[in-house]
Amino acid sequence: MQKHINKPSLRVGFLGGVGEIGKNMTILEFGEDIIVIDCGSSFPNIDMPGVDLVIPDPTYLIENKDRVRGIVLTHGHEDHIGALPYILKDLNVNVYGTKLTLALVENKLKEHHVEAELITVKPKTVIKLGKNFKVEFIGVNHSIAGSCALSIETPLGRVFHTGDFKVDYTPIDGNIIDLQRISELGKDGVLLLLGESTNIERPGYTMSEATVGKSLNNIFSENTDRRIFIATFASNIHRIQQILDLAEKYKRKVALLGRSLINVVDCAAKINELHFNRDNMIDAEKINKYADNELVIILTGSQGEPMSALTRMASDVSKIKLGYNDTVIISASPIPGNERMIYNVINNLYRHGARVIYESLHEIHVSGHACQEELKLIHTLLKPKFFIPIHGEHRHQKKHAELAVSIGMQPYNIMITDIGNVVEVTEKTITMKDNIPSGQLLVDGLNIGDEGSGEVIRDRRHLSEEGLFVVVVCLNALSGEVNSVDISTRGFIMNKESDDKLLESVKDLIIKLLSEFDLKSMSGEYTAVKNTLRKEIKTYLFKKIRRNPMILPMILEN
Amino acid sequence: MQKHINKPSLRVGFLGGVGEIGKNMTILEFGEDIIVIDCGSSFPNIDMPGVDLVIPDPTYLIENKDRVRGIVLTHGHEDHIGALPYILKDLNVNVYGTKLTLALVENKLKEHHVEAELITVKPKTVIKLGKNFKVEFIGVNHSIAGSCALSIETPLGRVFHTGDFKVDYTPIDGNIIDLQRISELGKDGVLLLLGESTNIERPGYTMSEATVGKSLNNIFSENTDRRIFIATFASNIHRIQQILDLAEKYKRKVALLGRSLINVVDCAAKINELHFNRDNMIDAEKINKYADNELVIILTGSQGEPMSALTRMASDVSKIKLGYNDTVIISASPIPGNERMIYNVINNLYRHGARVIYESLHEIHVSGHACQEELKLIHTLLKPKFFIPIHGEHRHQKKHAELAVSIGMQPYNIMITDIGNVVEVTEKTITMKDNIPSGQLLVDGLNIGDEGSGEVIRDRRHLSEEGLFVVVVCLNALSGEVNSVDISTRGFIMNKESDDKLLESVKDLIIKLLSEFDLKSMSGEYTAVKNTLRKEIKTYLFKKIRRNPMILPMILEN
Repeated sequence: MQKHINKPSLRVGFLGGVGEIGKNMTILEFGEDIIVIDCGSSFPNIDMPGVDLVIPDPTYLIENKDRVRGIVLTHGHEDHIGALPYILKDLNVNVYGTKLTLALVENKLKEHHVEAELITVKPKTVIKLGKNFKVEFIGVNHSIAGSCALSIETPLGRVFHTGDFKVDYTPIDGNIIDLQRISELGKDGVLLLLGESTNIERPGYTMSEATVGKSLNNIFSENTDRRIFIATFASNIHRIQQILDLAEKYKRKVALLGRSLINVVDCAAKINELHFNRDNMIDAEKINKYADNELVIILTGSQGEPMSALTRMASDVSKIKLGYNDTVIISASPIPGNERMIYNVINNLYRHGARVIYESLHEIHVSGHACQEELKLIHTLLKPKFFIPIHGEHRHQKKHAELAVSIGMQPYNIMITDIGNVVEVTEKTITMKDNIPSGQLLVDGLNIGDEGSGEVIRDRRHLSEEGLFVVVVCLNALSGEVNSVDISTRGFIMNKESDDKLLESVKDLIIKLLSEFDLKSMSGEYTAVKNTLRKEIKTYLFKKIRRNPMILPMILEN
Repeated sequence: MQKHINKPSLRVGFLGGVGEIGKNMTILEFGEDIIVIDCGSSFPNIDMPGVDLVIPDPTYLIENKDRVRGIVLTHGHEDHIGALPYILKDLNVNVYGTKLTLALVENKLKEHHVEAELITVKPKTVIKLGKNFKVEFIGVNHSIAGSCALSIETPLGRVFHTGDFKVDYTPIDGNIIDLQRISELGKDGVLLLLGESTNIERPGYTMSEATVGKSLNNIFSENTDRRIFIATFASNIHRIQQILDLAEKYKRKVALLGRSLINVVDCAAKINELHFNRDNMIDAEKINKYADNELVIILTGSQGEPMSALTRMASDVSKIKLGYNDTVIISASPIPGNERMIYNVINNLYRHGARVIYESLHEIHVSGHACQEELKLIHTLLKPKFFIPIHGEHRHQKKHAELAVSIGMQPYNIMITDIGNVVEVTEKTITMKDNIPSGQLLVDGLNIGDEGSGEVIRDRRHLSEEGLFVVVVCLNALSGEVNSVDISTRGFIMNKESDDKLLESVKDLIIKLLSEFDLKSMSGEYTAVKNTLRKEIKTYLFKKIRRNPMILPMILEN
C-alpha cells in the first residue's frame, strides 16, 4: 500500500521593506520551485541615521539558489527594483519585466557593474517558471508606465498579485487597466489575492492622471509671461509627457534638471514611451539665453530631498536664480516623513519672491494607488478564496482586511502578515508558518551591513543625541604610573565656560578612580578599569548636567 | 525756533521660534517702554539632535532690562510660556495672564526654582505698562481655556494681537470669542494688526469643539462593552471636560496616565476650570480592579512622543496590557514632522488587537486655530491700517497677506517679517528696520547653549550620519619614536570582516604618514600632524568605502 504523502503546499514569504509588508519582495514557493516577485529597496527610517538604502536580506534565497526560477518585476519604481544590483551579485537568475522597467534596471545594473539576463515581456505575456509556476502579466495603471499585476498559476490554483495599481479610465498612454482579463480570471477562480493597500485609508476613487494635465494647462494659461518650474517624480513618465505636450502647445522650450530625471527621460524616449520633439529640449546650462515666457524647467526634488535640483535652487546654491517672475509648481504630495523638508523648501521659494503652487486643491498631483472603491472593484471581480493585504503598514493591512470583510469575505480567509512571515496555502486552508530570515540589510556607501549593523545604528543615534566624550589614559605598564589623562569631546560642549570647569572636575575624578586600581598588575587587560571609568563618568555627568554622552575610554601603555 | 525732533515710533520685534515667526515672543517698544508678548519655547527641529528645547535669545531684553515693563501672556501653551523659567532668571518683571495660564506658569516656575510676580487678569481687564502702553485682554476661543487676544493702546494708535484663536459659537465653557468688543475696537480704529496664520491654508471654518463631544459620545455608545482609551493634548481642558462628562454619563471611572496630564487636570480643577466628581477618578495603578466597561483612560502621547504613556503602552513596556477588548481613540492630529512616530504607535496598537480610531473623518479632533473665513471675519471687523501676519512659517505669512489683499487691504500696508526683524510703525508708514539679536538658544539637559552650540549640533549630525573614527598615537617626545597607534570606532563598522581589513590598512597608512614628519622637533605642537592625519584618512576612507566618518586624531606623549 502506498504511504500517505503530504500534499505539497504553496508557501508565500515576505522579505525586506521598512514597515511596509510585501513591498520590496515577495516570494512564492511550491515543491522545488521558488519565484521572486519584485526586488526593491527602501529609504531608511529616520531612526537609521547615515544609512543610504535598506535592502531585503537575501539569505533565504541564497541558501536555496538552485531552486530560484526567476525574478518577476511588477514595475520600475525603486521600491520594486532598487535591490537588484545587490541581490543579483549572489543570485544568477533571469529577470522578467516590461520594457520601461527593464530599461531602468539595465541602467542601474550598469552603474553597479552587475550583469544579468533581462527578459522583456508585455502585458498578456505568459512565462513558465520551473515546473510549478506560470506567470501572466496583466497591464494596470500606476504612476509609472509599464506597470503590471501578476496572475500566477500554481498546481493548487491561481495567485493574483496586484502590484501597485489604480484604475484610470483615461490614462495618458491609452492603456486602461485590463479589467476584462481580471474579470475572466475571477470567473475562472482565484485561490489567493495579494492586494496592495497604500490608499486603503482614502474613500472613493483616485483621480485620473489626465486631471493633472488639465490643471497644469490652466496654470500655463494663467502664467503666460512667467518662467515656469515643475518639480515632479523622475519616474512619472505620464506626468512628464503631459508637461512636454503643454510646453509644445505654449511654445516653451524644456530644460531638465536633476540626474535621475535626465536618465529616465532618456531611457523612456529610447524605447518610445515618451514622445517629444528633440528640438524643443534645451540644455539646463542655456536657460539664461531664453526669455522667461519661453521656458519650462522640469526638475527633481518634489520631496525636498537635500541634494535635489529644487532644494538647491530654493537654498540659492544653484546656478539658477529665482525671482519675482517665476512660478514653481510642486506636482507631488509629501511622502509621510518628508513634510518638514518640503515645507522648508516651499518657504525658501517664497523668500525668493516666486509664486508657489503646491496644494492638493489645485489638482496638480494625483496618487498612483487605488482608493477604497477601486479596491472593492478588484475584490469583486476576482472573488478570491484567500486574501493577504500587502503593500502597507500594519494599520493599512487591518483596514484592507476590514474592507474585504465589508464586501462579503470571511475573516478567517484573510491573513495579516509581517515581514519575515511565511504563509502556507492549500486548496482549503491558509496558515501562518515559521519565519524565514528577512531582516533589513543596511547599505552605507559601498558597505552592506551585516548582523552587527543594528549596533552601529544604535551608536549613531546615541552620538547624535548626546555627543561624544573620549577619555585617553596613557600609563606606564611596568610601574602602573599614569602619564597623562586627555579628554576630547564632540557634540558636547554647549556652553564653553561652564563645561570647561566640568571637564577639569571629570579629570580629577578619573585620576581618583585610577588610583584605586593596581594598574601594574594588569598585564594589559584593562577592561575592568575601562568599565569603571565609563560607569562613574556617566553617573557623574548625568548628576551634574543631566546629560548622557557616549563615553569612550581608551587606555594606552608606553 | 524749536528744532525738529523725530517723532517717536512704535517698534515691533520678533524673537525666537523654530520657523514660526512671532510665535514664541513678540516685543513692542515705544519711547522708553518695552513690553513682551508671550515667552514660549519650541521643540527642536529634526536637524538639532539631542536638543530638549529651543528658547528665544533674551540678549536684547537683558541689555534693555530697565525698560521692560512686563510680560503679557496670551495663553498657557508651551510655545507661549515655555521659556519663562529661563528668561525670568535674568529679567525681573511682572507676568500677566489669565487664571489657567498663570496656574500652569506657576507649576513650571516651581519646578525650576524660579520666582516671579504673577498677576492674574480676566478678559476685559486693562493694565497700564509704562507710560506708553495700555493692554486690554480680549477673550477668544482656542484649544486651551483662558486664551486672550490683546488690544494694546499706544500713543500712535491701537495694536491688536490675535494670539492663537478660533471662532467657536458653541464653546464648552460658554465663553464665545468677544466679537462685540473686537467690532467696537475696529470702529474705534486699529493701527496695526498682528494676526495668527496657523490655518491660513485651510478654507472655510474650524469646527466647534462641541462636535468632538458628539463624535466621542457616538464612540462611547458603540463601545459599551469595551475598555476605552483616549489620547489627547494634556492642555486641552475642554476636550478633557467633555470626556469626563461622558465618563459620568456612561458610568465609567476615569484614570489619568501621564505626568503632564495629571498636572494640568490638577491645576485646572483647583481654579475651577474643570468640573468633575472626585469619586469618579481612580488611580491608574488600580485599573485592573475594574471591568473593561467601567473604565475610560485618558492619556498623553497623541503625537507618538517616545516616552509618553500611549507610546509605552503600544510598545508593550507599560504595566497596562492592551488586548482585543480595547478601543483606543487618538483625539489629535499629527503636528507636521510627527507623522512617522504616531503611525508607528498606531501600527503597534493594532498589533495588540486593539480597535484604533484616529482619522479626521471621525471628527474626534478639531483644530484650535482659525481657518480662512474666520480670519476674514476678524480682518473685516478690525479694519486695521497695517498688518503683519504672525504665527506661521514664511509660506503661511504670504498666504495670509494674500487673504488680506483679497478682502481689500493695500499690499504696501502689509509687512512680511522674519525672526529677528524689527518693524517700525508710524501713523502713516510701516518699514523694516535693523534686526535685533534673536537667535535660538538650545537647551540640553541643564545646559543652555552659547554661540558655540551650532557647532555642537553640526558635530552631532556628522556623528549620527557617518559615525566616529578615533585615532590615538602615543609617541616618545624626545626620540620622536611612535610607541603605538590605536583606532577606535563607533557607529562605523557595518561589516566586521571587510572593515577589520580596512582598519589594518588605515593603521599602515598612519604609520607611513607619521614617518614623514620629524616628530621629535615639534615640542608638543602636533596640529599639523593631526590635520594631515585627518585629511589623509578622510580621503582614504572615502575612496575605499564611500564613507566619511568624523575623524578624531589624538597625539599623546609619554
